Parts: sequence; structure tokens; C-alpha cells
Amino acid sequence: MIGRTHHCGKLGESNRGEQVVLKGWVQRRRDLGGLIFIDLRDRSGIVQVVVNPEVSKEALETAEQIRNEFVVGVTGNVVKRDPATVNENIETGTIEVIAEEVTILNAAKNPPFQIEDKTDVGEDIRLKYRYLDLRRPIMQKTFKLRHQITKQIRNFLDENEFLEIETPILTKSTPEGARDYLVPSRVHHGEFYALPQSPQLFKQLLMVSGFERYYQIARCFRDEDLRADRQPEFTQVDIETSFLEKEDLLAMMEKMMVSIVKETKGIEITSPFPRLTYKDAMDRYGSDKPDTRFGMELKDVSDVVKQAGFKVFSEAVRNGGSVRAINVKGQADAYSRKDIDVLTEFVKVYGAKGLAWLKVESEGVAGPIAKFFTEEEVNGMLQQLDAGEGDLLLFVADKNKVVFDSLGALRLKLGKDLHLIDESKLHFLWVIEFPLLTYDEDEKRYVAEHHPFTSPVAEDLELLAKDPAKVRADAYDLVLNGYELGGGSQRIYKRDIQEKMFEALGFSEEEGKAQFGFLLDAFEYGTPPHGGIALGLDRLVMILAGRNNLRDTIAFPKTTSASDLMTEAPSEVSPSQLEELNLKIRYEKKM
Amino acid sequence: MIGRTHHCGKLGESNRGEQVVLKGWVQRRRDLGGLIFIDLRDRSGIVQVVVNPEVSKEALETAEQIRNEFVVGVTGNVVKRDPATVNENIETGTIEVIAEEVTILNAAKNPPFQIEDKTDVGEDIRLKYRYLDLRRPIMQKTFKLRHQITKQIRNFLDENEFLEIETPILTKSTPEGARDYLVPSRVHHGEFYALPQSPQLFKQLLMVSGFERYYQIARCFRDEDLRADRQPEFTQVDIETSFLEKEDLLAMMEKMMVSIVKETKGIEITSPFPRLTYKDAMDRYGSDKPDTRFGMELKDVSDVVKQAGFKVFSEAVRNGGSVRAINVKGQADAYSRKDIDVLTEFVKVYGAKGLAWLKVESEGVAGPIAKFFTEEEVNGMLQQLDAGEGDLLLFVADKNKVVFDSLGALRLKLGKDLHLIDESKLHFLWVIEFPLLTYDEDEKRYVAEHHPFTSPVAEDLELLAKDPAKVRADAYDLVLNGYELGGGSQRIYKRDIQEKMFEALGFSEEEGKAQFGFLLDAFEYGTPPHGGIALGLDRLVMILAGRNNLRDTIAFPKTTSASDLMTEAPSEVSPSQLEELNLKIRYEKKM
Repeated sequence: MIGRTHHCGKLGESNRGEQVVLKGWVQRRRDLGGLIFIDLRDRSGIVQVVVNPEVSKEALETAEQIRNEFVVGVTGNVVKRDPATVNENIETGTIEVIAEEVTILNAAKNPPFQIEDKTDVGEDIRLKYRYLDLRRPIMQKTFKLRHQITKQIRNFLDENEFLEIETPILTKSTPEGARDYLVPSRVHHGEFYALPQSPQLFKQLLMVSGFERYYQIARCFRDEDLRADRQPEFTQVDIETSFLEKEDLLAMMEKMMVSIVKETKGIEITSPFPRLTYKDAMDRYGSDKPDTRFGMELKDVSDVVKQAGFKVFSEAVRNGGSVRAINVKGQADAYSRKDIDVLTEFVKVYGAKGLAWLKVESEGVAGPIAKFFTEEEVNGMLQQLDAGEGDLLLFVADKNKVVFDSLGALRLKLGKDLHLIDESKLHFLWVIEFPLLTYDEDEKRYVAEHHPFTSPVAEDLELLAKDPAKVRADAYDLVLNGYELGGGSQRIYKRDIQEKMFEALGFSEEEGKAQFGFLLDAFEYGTPPHGGIALGLDRLVMILAGRNNLRDTIAFPKTTSASDLMTEAPSEVSPSQLEELNLKIRYEKKM
Repeated sequence: MIGRTHHCGKLGESNRGEQVVLKGWVQRRRDLGGLIFIDLRDRSGIVQVVVNPEVSKEALETAEQIRNEFVVGVTGNVVKRDPATVNENIETGTIEVIAEEVTILNAAKNPPFQIEDKTDVGEDIRLKYRYLDLRRPIMQKTFKLRHQITKQIRNFLDENEFLEIETPILTKSTPEGARDYLVPSRVHHGEFYALPQSPQLFKQLLMVSGFERYYQIARCFRDEDLRADRQPEFTQVDIETSFLEKEDLLAMMEKMMVSIVKETKGIEITSPFPRLTYKDAMDRYGSDKPDTRFGMELKDVSDVVKQAGFKVFSEAVRNGGSVRAINVKGQADAYSRKDIDVLTEFVKVYGAKGLAWLKVESEGVAGPIAKFFTEEEVNGMLQQLDAGEGDLLLFVADKNKVVFDSLGALRLKLGKDLHLIDESKLHFLWVIEFPLLTYDEDEKRYVAEHHPFTSPVAEDLELLAKDPAKVRADAYDLVLNGYELGGGSQRIYKRDIQEKMFEALGFSEEEGKAQFGFLLDAFEYGTPPHGGIALGLDRLVMILAGRNNLRDTIAFPKTTSASDLMTEAPSEVSPSQLEELNLKIRYEKKM
């Protein structure tokens, strides 16, 4: 048997009469009337092979040993199928290959699960046998899409004169941001590298170097407790530019997104993307990454209820918080008290002490709290919430953060539960005017909302020392369908402003110099104005592939406890390896 | 001042009369006759800006504050230069920009070295101020070339239906090969990830998954003592294919190399590339990565001198070694005894005990060892070495390894010293038929010459248990100008052969399973025949850029002690970071 001449899924009637050599996996074998039918699969698709002892007895003998997932080679002739046996479920369904020779290239045990899109096997098994999981057509399709998305990003950036430049993975540990993964140095005992949380400093230094337009599809690392949509290592499209105004960069990124969606999904989306200020996003959606594919916006009823007899409401307003609500249109009858209890438990996760509710009836409102409100207050609420008969109104009264978090999450949950979301839509939007700093109650200091290198908007610069919480960042997040795709900003590029920023973050001058001295120095040697953005590639692929699990977009992902179930990493290492690193384990593992 | 309209280096006579806005760095400022001349540089090149108080007094006042490497914006008009002032050294030398407005975007201190190609500043200073070093035009050019090479590789592989798939950086530590960088796990105390030395196992598993053609431009890590041409992290073009014969893969890689060289350097090279067996490469060049841009091949004179009165020679042969020599054509008079002493010291580094020599004169040979040989022996040597009057013959007699290492290195040194190498040439070649295993005297066992997943050539399979040293690997190294660009092989894809390989390497069955159980398992679920290659991107860029230091091809490289002089990584971390990782430093650093 010579080398492969064709791919299974690409055979068609134009190949009729040709002798072909195919190589691939046995999707299915059936024995029927003395013949053996093999569905042969390769990366391109499936074709039916017919093994007929009248054509080759040897081929039949070989085919008899074949089981699912065997790797085989087939030499045969392409013929048109009898109209009665045409299979419309596969692209090659009008033809079949009459085998002259069948060779077993490798045998296969029965796999622990079927290689099919639909599988009810647990994710742990899929991850342990990831090499089989990745054989499923839906996974093959996802990684093909990932390749195409990546390629389109590269093409776009190349056309726009960006240079791809690699930055180090063995970098310096810095205290800001998430927890670093550390790498002990064998040469410098007691010292460590850190895996980068992003190439932030390096890309800024590349701007100092005059590269003007840099990109990298960069691996980044965060040693954080993982949620379903987080991985210890993830990939970001990392971009930085010099001399570009914010508007130029946003327009360029919109063009890039339009081109990605068009080239990989054939979907036309329009730009410019809508913009929401951080304040509006929170007020209207209770989220800085709102899913705008449906309404059910939050409404502030604080003013209406600030004097109400219902103390939960009036006190929340008096204490500087707010009372906000969503109107679940026409669902008053659909939600029983029990159903609402479930929603109450749901919002408690976000810190809400309870979920107040009213049902709108033909004459006023019903519900346990209805009696606490005057008619004027009721009318005010109904008006504010644009509510009518049959509507269910859900309220949270608390500190603003709790109100936003709980109602924002509740809105998303109800949107999904009630099928209000058109899954075919792609809603891109920019969220702008983030606060530069937020006060961290645990650390008793301001921390950067994005990172310490984000520039304040020029007008707010003088507030940095006086009233840090009021300073707006010259930053922009790109949001798609309720996911934060990425964030960017104009950067600080002058030493004195960077020093003021460090001061606002509570760094001493020495700390600033010890950690970021090289950046402060660099700012003094001719640093251009610059800005950039980082986009989460894994998330972008997930959304465009229509998947809802980030792990399905990463070839070899880790579990939420950061383990690789296939290779069993992390694992113990030999005492001599530790000795070379001058390290000791503090406490032995409990057995 | 509005946004940039043009790039400095792209202005030309076609822009005459246009108003332009430029942004960039001040390469040089000169004051002449009341005018100020600024050489303004951006990524694209340099243009001359003329600041004339008669055009704008404010511009002149601003320009007076400007120093080298200031970042400035200039609005002005493009005019043709007076023929007498045309500067033929720069591409924009026939025009200049008459400034109407000059803005300082950022000031700059005097840099620690001039931003010019020619610099005699030490590499330590260049690495500490890497952001300035990278501003030098030759560095900008190198990274532009690196971008183009990478792009061409991606384009080629994409056209050939390869999918780019990312594999993990946090992987499992395996004992074979070089030393791993380890990453302690915070969640699994006492356990570690390892940074990958290559994506070898993952790419093989992707073949098990049926992706058929995979590539990745992958970061790899080795915690080894570094030489000038090694970095702790490096980048390889990682490729794996299923169902391809070796010949198909080699032809495809040749096509890729031809396309890279053509697209990025405009040079046409021919394929197929020459092939040398490992044995021939060693015999003729004393190296498995020979530089074939010049001759001066090694010749084996063992047969001629095995009975010679010169014991060093005859005993080397008797002990299983050999006597080999190179002929330094026409250089007998050029090398004094002292010069040869220097060469002798040079070969001692490679384990040679000495360097014997003869000078060919009109009547026979001269030199301290001449008297030990019969006329027949002398004639035999001269014939073997194709030697004539005026030639210098240099001999090493020892174990083969020492002979090859020392004469191979000496040949290269003399090739450089005597300018025998045409630096404009690109000599690609394949070295094939490597030994699969080599005996490691320290470990008292066989180790894999490439890695434990390389397939033996089919005919040698049965020798694996009987005579491991004789087994040839189905492997191929790609060599360019004396550098190993990369290595590839057909892989083992059956469990029993992989187990035999582990056995030959001295692994117990348990060790094999503990380290590579997932791979052995995978081989049983339908693994296709597969093979691939990995190419060193840093080296390829280095050679094509005509540089001779790998660090010049990596944006932020590390020193030979694996330090980053700019960020000062590695560095100490806080006690709480260590505590979270359940680690202790064994011995505190000596102060």
C-alpha cells in the first residue's frame, strides 16, 4: 500500500472510477449479507468502505478482525451508491469505496466512551482520556475554529503593521495583581522566577524601544482558586501601540473583531460597537460586562421608597445604599412562592440578605411587603419599572455593590431560564470610564481596578492625590454577550505620574523602585505615549464556537484544582531535584 | 496637533507640498545658522526636520529644549532639499520637513549608550537597558525579520492544512532528557509542575486524537548550565504529522525552508537538500552538524599508521580508536611552532592529549614526528590526505569520540581563522541514520540519542534487545551552516515497542508506567503512524539575520547565569509566598 491519496470526507462523485488510498479510523463496522461495511473516518470526515469477498478475500479476512477505532489503510475504487442506499447524513453519502486491500495499521481497545458528539460520560473521564475526547467531531471542529480565529487575528495585525514579539515566561515576581506561579532558581539559591500574569511590563518596554505596534498571542498564568471559567494558564491576544489615540485603537479593534467574525463564522456585524460608561453599565445591568442581548434592566427605586414604611428599603437608602428592582414581564403567575424562595437563595450567594417581591395585579400590587407602601409609592415603583398587570417585580435593597451583584446575576439567570436570550446574536460593546482605583477593605488601601500602569483620564489627574476614588481610568473593556473579552487602556508614560500612582496604591518609594525601578527608569529615556489591550482568546473561541465551558477550547486543560487528569500533573519529584533547588517541603503531605 | 499622518522613513518626493504630522524620537539635533535641524526617527526610518524661526518662533523655542531621544511631534511641510544638501545616507535624503509646530511628548535623559548599530558598550549594559538596546536599528531589523520568518512559517503550515494547537506550559516532570524547571503547586502541597522541554508527548497525543497535522511555535525550557548559544527558554517550531512517510515530511520541510529563505531574504535555494548519514558526517567532518560551506574534511589514516613506530598512533588504533587528520592546504609556512602550540591547547579542551603535525616539503615531510614513519607510511598519509608541498597536516590519535570532537572543532576554527567560509551561503543538509541509543558511562546505561519516543528503523527492531548500540533511529536532523536547526523522527506508535524501548533504557516496568503510563495507554486506543520535527526558531533567525549571538534574536534574553539584568529576575519572594507553597529554603544564601 502506498501513501494516502485522498481524505475520506473529501471524496465525492467527481472521484467516481478512481483508485484511492485512504487512511483513518474505523468509526463503525457492520456485517451484512456476507459483506463488511466500514465507516472510515479521518480529520476531513467519513466515507463508507465496502469489503466484498468477491473483490478480495484477503481484504475481507482482514476486515473481520477490525473493531471500532482501529487505524486502517484502504485501497479501493470509488463508485456511485445505489440510490436506495444513499446516506444523506454524511457529505460523502452518494458514493462508497469498494475495497481491494485493507491493512491494519494499529489495533484499538474498546474506548471508555463512544467517539461521538453526544456523550453523557463524566468530564473527569473525558479529561483522563483527553486524546479520545479530542477525537469527537465537535472537539475537532472547535480546535479548527480556534486555529482559524488565531490565524485571522494574525493576518489582521500583520496587515496593520504589528510585529509579533515574544516576551519571557520566566519573569520577575511582582506583588500587585493575582498570585504568581513561582519557579525556583537552581543557580541563584533562594530566588525565584514568576510566570507572567500578562506581558504588561514587557510590552510597555517594547514601546519604549520604539517598536510602535506589538502583538503576541501570549500564555499567561494565575495561581488563583479556579472557577468554571478560569484556567491556571490561559492565552491572551496581547496588543500595544504607540502614538495612537484611544479612538484609533478602539476603531482598529472593532475592525479586527468584525473581520474575525466574518472570516470564521460568515457573520456580518456592524461597528462602531455601542459604548456604556461603567456607571451606566452598573446602573442598567448590575454588571461591568453586561449581556445586552436582552432587556430586563435594573431600575433604581430608591427615591420612590426612601421614606417607605418598609424599613429594609428606607434604611438601605438612608445608609447610602439603594433599592433597585427588575421587572420580570408577564411572569407573575409563573412564579410561585416556592419558586421565589429559590431565587432568594440564589441572590444570597451574592450577599443579599433577601429578595423582596411584588406581583402586579389589575388593582395594585400583591405580596407580603405590599402593605408597607403608600399608593403613591406603589405608583412610583410601577412607573419606574414600566410595570403592568401580570408582571413580577424583584427588589434588592442593600449597599450598592450587593444590589448590583445580586440583581445583575439574577437578571442573567432569569434571562436564561426564560429563554430571553437569542443565542445566535453577537453583542459586542465597550465599557468605558472605569474607576482607576477601588478601596480594598481587606488591605485597607486603594488597589488598581485594572492595573497600576493604567493612565487616569487627563482631567482627573489632579484628583489622584486628593480624592482617589473619583479618578476615572482611561480604560476600556470589550464585552461580548456578557463576557469580558478583554481590557485595555492608555498607559502612564511619565515617571512622575507613575510615582504618584504607586503612592496612591500605598507603595513606599522604595517598594516602587524595588519592584518597578526598571520601568520608572525607562520612562526617563524617551517613552512615547502608548496604550493597548489584551483579549482572552480562550473565551473568544468559546463564544464563537457556541460552547459554554472554557475547558472545551483548550486542548489539555486543568481541573478546578489545577490538575491534569491525563498526565497526573502536578506530581511529586525526586529528593535530588529538590536538593538541587535548595528547597525543603515544610510539612509532609497527610496520607 | 492631530494624529500622525505619515511615518518618517516613508516620506519622499511624492509628498512634496503636503502638510504632515510626524511623531518619533530625536536621533540628533544640530544648530546651524539660527536654524535647528532635527533628525527625527520612528520605526520606519529617519527624516530631517528644519526648524526656522521665520516659519515659527514657538517651534524654535521648543526645539531649543530638545535633546537626543526626546519624543516629539512635528507638524510641517515637505519640501525638496537643495541639491547641495541631499543626504544619500538616508532614504528620505532628498526631502526635508519645514516645521510649523514642534511638541515635546516626553523628555529623555542622555542614554547610557548611543542608539546606533555600532556600539562598543558591554553586553551587560545593553541587557540592563534592553529597552534602549532594542532601539538600535540593527535590533529593530532583526525583530522585524523574526516576525517575517514566523509569519512565513505559519502561512506555509496553514496552506498545508496544519492546525495550530497550544499545549500546556504547566506539565509533568519526567526524568529523561535535560533538567526540568519546576513549579511548586499551592493546591497540592509537595507536588510540582514542570515547564516543558518540548511539547513532545502532547503533540504525539494530538496525533492519537486524529488532528493529523499539528504545529505550534512553542516555548520550551531547560534548566541547564548555559553556553553562549543556549537560553533557559527558547522557541521551537513544533510539527507533528500522521500517516506521512518520512520522505513526505522531509520534502515538506525542505519546501518550507525554501519558502522562508525566499520570502524573507529573497534568496533562492535548491531542494532536495543533501543528506549525510551520521557515520559519514562524523567521518568527514567530525560533527553531526557539519558546516559544509568549506572542505578541509577529516581523513582516516589509521590503516596507514597502525604499525607505525610512532606509538601514539599505533596504540590508538590498537585500542580501538583511530588516527585522523586534516590537511590545512598551503599553510605550512604560515603556522609556526608557537601557532601550532595554540592549536594544541585548543584541541585539549575536547579531550585530545595532543596534536601531531607534519609539514609537507618538496622532499618528504618535516616535523618532530616525521622520523617515526617509513617512506611507505609517509606516502600513504600524503595520498590519503591529498597532500602536496606547502600543506600543514594536523593529526589526532585517540578514542573515536575524542578524535571527532577535537578535529571537528579544529576544522571549524581553522575554517574561520583562514576565512574559508563564504558567509553569504546557506548550506542546508539532513543528517540521517543516527544511532537510537548511546551508552552513558556515568549512568551505566543506554540513553536515547534523541528521545525515548523515536522509532528504530524497521530492519533494526530486533537488535533492540540484543545489541542496542547497533540500532539506527528513524530520525533526521536538519543542519544549516554548522548549526543543528532541529531534529525529527518517525515515532514509536505501538505499546509493545515503546515498552521495549523503555526496557533498553533501563526503566523498570513500574517506572515506565508511572512516568509515561498515559502514553502507553493511548497507544492502545488507535494510534496512527506518526512523525514530526522541531526546529529552533531562535537559531534560524540568528543565522538568517547574520548574527552570531542567540541573545540578539530574543527580545528579553537571560545571561549565561539565567538572570534577567533588566528586571533583576530571579529575585527573592516574600515569606508568605513560600509558606503558601509549603516550602522552605534549605540553607540561607551566603552573604
